[in-house]
Amino acid sequence: MSGRSERETGRLLGVGVGPGDPELVTLKALRAIEEADVVAHFAKDGHASHARAIVAPHLPAGVTELALRYPVTTETPKEKSEYRDAIKKFYDEAAAAIARHLDADRTVAVIAEGDPLFYGSYMHLHARLSPQYPTEIIAGVTGMAGCWAETGTPIAQGDDVFTVLPATLAADKLERRLADSDAAVVMKLGRHLAKVRRALAATGQLARAIYVERGTMAGAVMMRLADKKDDRAPYFAVVLVPGWETKP
Amino acid sequence: MSGRSERETGRLLGVGVGPGDPELVTLKALRAIEEADVVAHFAKDGHASHARAIVAPHLPAGVTELALRYPVTTETPKEKSEYRDAIKKFYDEAAAAIARHLDADRTVAVIAEGDPLFYGSYMHLHARLSPQYPTEIIAGVTGMAGCWAETGTPIAQGDDVFTVLPATLAADKLERRLADSDAAVVMKLGRHLAKVRRALAATGQLARAIYVERGTMAGAVMMRLADKKDDRAPYFAVVLVPGWETKP
Repeated sequence: MSGRSERETGRLLGVGVGPGDPELVTLKALRAIEEADVVAHFAKDGHASHARAIVAPHLPAGVTELALRYPVTTETPKEKSEYRDAIKKFYDEAAAAIARHLDADRTVAVIAEGDPLFYGSYMHLHARLSPQYPTEIIAGVTGMAGCWAETGTPIAQGDDVFTVLPATLAADKLERRLADSDAAVVMKLGRHLAKVRRALAATGQLARAIYVERGTMAGAVMMRLADKKDDRAPYFAVVLVPGWETKP
Repeated sequence: MSGRSERETGRLLGVGVGPGDPELVTLKALRAIEEADVVAHFAKDGHASHARAIVAPHLPAGVTELALRYPVTTETPKEKSEYRDAIKKFYDEAAAAIARHLDADRTVAVIAEGDPLFYGSYMHLHARLSPQYPTEIIAGVTGMAGCWAETGTPIAQGDDVFTVLPATLAADKLERRLADSDAAVVMKLGRHLAKVRRALAATGQLARAIYVERGTMAGAVMMRLADKKDDRAPYFAVVLVPGWETKP
């Protein structure tokens, strides 16, 4: 189902590199990185790319790198038109920079934390480029799977309904969807942790909720949410709500 | 958060080996298999283990294998007490067989398709053994991530609510939860595909739904669900409902 070009072009590879532990990279991702002419990665301006750090030992010597630097932080309100305009322009320009390599018959691997098609920035490039260029996706271990593995938390089983919820949802919507799920992951906590805690208390799920920060990475923090004394959380922290209450 | 024993025992490793493509195995999973004294795997009676087939080229010569054979098929109605009794006895005995190795100071890697803590049989062993034995989980690429990668389908982005739904849900519940989700995966299709199709038509999501059978494996089948002429589906087929309707 990937785009095919009549012209001779390079291939676009969307490469998941997993949640952070350099050992949670797949053989297929490593092969893609070794075969690529260009390795592209996203990073916040002024910061090193997390995806690049994960696979740094595997980058071929002398490979061309293309750093794609976000113009704005993820905490900027997304409703604002300045945000939308800036981010659209950024993705348009990033796609154009990649297209220039593809047009010159160079294969470009865009490395992405977690899985490239699951809440990842790569998707914005995919939408712009895959209709025009031969494209392959290499699935990765998601950040949330890294978190439930690290904490040894069986997350969902059997006929469980499992839901991923952004903490940015309004309190009533968050509560309704939590009540309607057997298992859940609440992500993008940032300044929303107090609201998430209240919603979990209302649905009776607070006692089993687990808070995880930097799952599978150095300095990982994990604890029962009920034991966490404050409501401070970084943007990428998550809350796991394990399901699976009827175990045979 | 794993169980710790005062006795000298082997370690229990729950090892995700990904969705089927042998290259979608992580470095960490391979290391676990190489370090293990015993490699255990689930299989339907009379069938080879899928997880074993995925990593077969990496199994150390002469490693001890422990085949855990399900006594009943996954299509047996789960409400029946004979099913529940038989499956509970099976997991109890499987856990006991593994415990004998752990007690003899042997490390046991239980290999699991996909991710071991996401709708996986390993979880039944984990619940029985991790309180008594040192345990480590190695996250894997899920079957559904393999499916959306294979079809090049960006599944969820930004503030999307993403839901995993078993097709076994009653029609009204399935429809309500689909209507409440931006993106979804419906799994365990089997004989439920006609009901799933009706629910997606009712919520206006049928046109963008994608049917996938044997994602990332030989003989993979994928098509728009609207283009699928019949309602026959194997148990492990899935329907992807991509979200992400507002792309900057």
